[in-house]
Amino acid sequence: MTLSQPSYEALTEHTAITLAKKLELFDSNADLVCHEIGDGNLNMVFRITEPAAQRGIIIKQALPYVRVIGEGWPLTLNRAVIESEALRHFAKHVPQFVPEIYYTDAAYAITVMEDLSHLTIVRTGLASGSTYPLLSTHIGEFLAKTLFATSDFAMGPQEKRELALQFHNPELCKITENFVFTYPLFDHETNDVEDILRPTAEALWNDQVLLLEAAKLKQTFMTHAEALLHGDLHTGSIFASDEETKVIDPEFAFYGPIGFDVGLFIANTLLSALAREESDRAALLFHITQVWDVFTITFSNLWRQNNVDDFAQVEGYLEYQLQHIWADAVGFAGSEIIRRIFGLAHARDIEAITEDAHRLAVKRNAAALGRDFIVNRSLYESPSQIVQALQQVVKGASIVHI
Amino acid sequence: MTLSQPSYEALTEHTAITLAKKLELFDSNADLVCHEIGDGNLNMVFRITEPAAQRGIIIKQALPYVRVIGEGWPLTLNRAVIESEALRHFAKHVPQFVPEIYYTDAAYAITVMEDLSHLTIVRTGLASGSTYPLLSTHIGEFLAKTLFATSDFAMGPQEKRELALQFHNPELCKITENFVFTYPLFDHETNDVEDILRPTAEALWNDQVLLLEAAKLKQTFMTHAEALLHGDLHTGSIFASDEETKVIDPEFAFYGPIGFDVGLFIANTLLSALAREESDRAALLFHITQVWDVFTITFSNLWRQNNVDDFAQVEGYLEYQLQHIWADAVGFAGSEIIRRIFGLAHARDIEAITEDAHRLAVKRNAAALGRDFIVNRSLYESPSQIVQALQQVVKGASIVHI
Repeated sequence: MTLSQPSYEALTEHTAITLAKKLELFDSNADLVCHEIGDGNLNMVFRITEPAAQRGIIIKQALPYVRVIGEGWPLTLNRAVIESEALRHFAKHVPQFVPEIYYTDAAYAITVMEDLSHLTIVRTGLASGSTYPLLSTHIGEFLAKTLFATSDFAMGPQEKRELALQFHNPELCKITENFVFTYPLFDHETNDVEDILRPTAEALWNDQVLLLEAAKLKQTFMTHAEALLHGDLHTGSIFASDEETKVIDPEFAFYGPIGFDVGLFIANTLLSALAREESDRAALLFHITQVWDVFTITFSNLWRQNNVDDFAQVEGYLEYQLQHIWADAVGFAGSEIIRRIFGLAHARDIEAITEDAHRLAVKRNAAALGRDFIVNRSLYESPSQIVQALQQVVKGASIVHI
Repeated sequence: MTLSQPSYEALTEHTAITLAKKLELFDSNADLVCHEIGDGNLNMVFRITEPAAQRGIIIKQALPYVRVIGEGWPLTLNRAVIESEALRHFAKHVPQFVPEIYYTDAAYAITVMEDLSHLTIVRTGLASGSTYPLLSTHIGEFLAKTLFATSDFAMGPQEKRELALQFHNPELCKITENFVFTYPLFDHETNDVEDILRPTAEALWNDQVLLLEAAKLKQTFMTHAEALLHGDLHTGSIFASDEETKVIDPEFAFYGPIGFDVGLFIANTLLSALAREESDRAALLFHITQVWDVFTITFSNLWRQNNVDDFAQVEGYLEYQLQHIWADAVGFAGSEIIRRIFGLAHARDIEAITEDAHRLAVKRNAAALGRDFIVNRSLYESPSQIVQALQQVVKGASIVHI
């Protein structure tokens, strides 16, 4: 006789409240309000609040299929385990930058966590003029600390290989491999290209120099297991206020190239910058330089203090690592920009530009930057050169590398 | 109540015969002879023959510790599973180059396989003057076919990540990380340096240019999961005759950089060449150029016919892959050479040179080549330049890259 196992069932607003009470996260007789607030592509997100006490929690549940597409595209529920385990892992190193986890249930793919609704999603806030002055300082620290801590420089290689095994995440990696690194570079049915931009897209699809470098970046993503990545660190995966920053949604976490997380943050910040008027752009350009500066300083300090690799003290090895992470980051930023202009999932702040000529110009500029980041990633020595390239492109000039 | 599981027990020559009969690999009343012939560092190897029928089999059993060191250094028995699974995987693509597997038992860490005693171990044969004219043609094909088949170019990335999981092998990787990539580059207690060569070793240990490039190669080994490697493809892992070649002992198999297997074969062939008189060297230098030529042709054909990557047809991508594999291979060959001169496990053919001045000269030449392969790996455009470097070094000249 086999004992019956709990089997997956999707929560409703009603059963979400029942769960919250069962977990004793509220008084049994508290008046609770529940709303499903998920706007992502993959999950249900229930916000349960007790208005009388001004307290709330979040119950996130993975669906066994891709929500935007429907039941025809099944997707592993294990991503809920990956997500909560990644958040727990990040919390060891930067508890201040991740939500607190109260409860997880692997069978139901449920994570119960801190309610962050006093903060806003950064992509949304940036689109409405917020600047989040500490955002890049916090994200630079988040990236350096989480990525260093799970690299071969902080862990013995055997311990690292065991941790990588826990974050075996091939189904989610495949989504990135396809929708970031492949489809946007070809005339693929899942792309979303405005008619008038089709010649721009076609020029990229026929650009053998671009395709060769894009292929190398895809291979780097697929093969370089350097550290435990967040895996999807765009500005929609970050909650913030002027004082606080919280990284959410690491369901794409896996062992990959360190530059990927850095590049995604830079790309999405740059897209928000492009969507703004020039006079409002400075705060976002600052974030691009600041995130890398803070990453560099924090990573270098950790390297000097905690590096367990026998080669740690070799002259030039830290500098080589930073240079290689940076070049990867610039290239990955390029891949992310191209896919946010021509792929399936666009940058909402750019799509929100209603004036056609302006929106198309922004997209053309983004595409030019994305291509150059991919093709010439080794020529960008620092984030200030990314800013310069952006300034050249928005003036209608070609990108010149001095 | 828990049912008792079979628990590990080391075979003796007597119980090995009992097993062979139980498996019905011989007639129940056959007269069998068994000898333990293992001369490796990690395992017991029983050869069981039926002299009357001129038939034999091999029973290999992993020990739960490192044999040369003793019970103080435990080592996972799972390596027996890795080894037999790797042989089965290789057999899908190149059955002609691996022994047939008759039976495996994971709990006892036993693999029963084809007896190859009509062949000789290549390292031993090369030391006694054999040339194995087809060796490099066969190994070039073995490498290209096994490595291409398990790369992202032949498998979807998700399927590849699942296969990589099966070959999770951190304990054996750690041995390579330490004994190939780390200890020989530092003044480590496990090294074995002839007194008179100590200044040569110390010069390497203080050579920051070398150490930086050695560090990068170690990181490549630790992080680049490109294909299922043999993982220990020196000339002691190959049986051959003038007509036949069989690769054995893939217990170090794991997902790693393609150039590693290529580099180990080249390094060990080159060490055998250095151990010979100049007049007898040509056959071995031929193997160094031939293995890469055959690899290139075979890998390129597979690429054109079977590449599933969307970027396969991009101009220059195949050439880039070959160039990158080659540069890695040259560097890894350098790491292997250095460790075979100054590390724990030396090249037996060089150690066998009884005349001191000659042996020391060979070791110095090997060290000079190893250093140059590591430091200048990107300057070696083809195997003919490896041969040229060897010829320069044995003449007492410096290595010049034109």
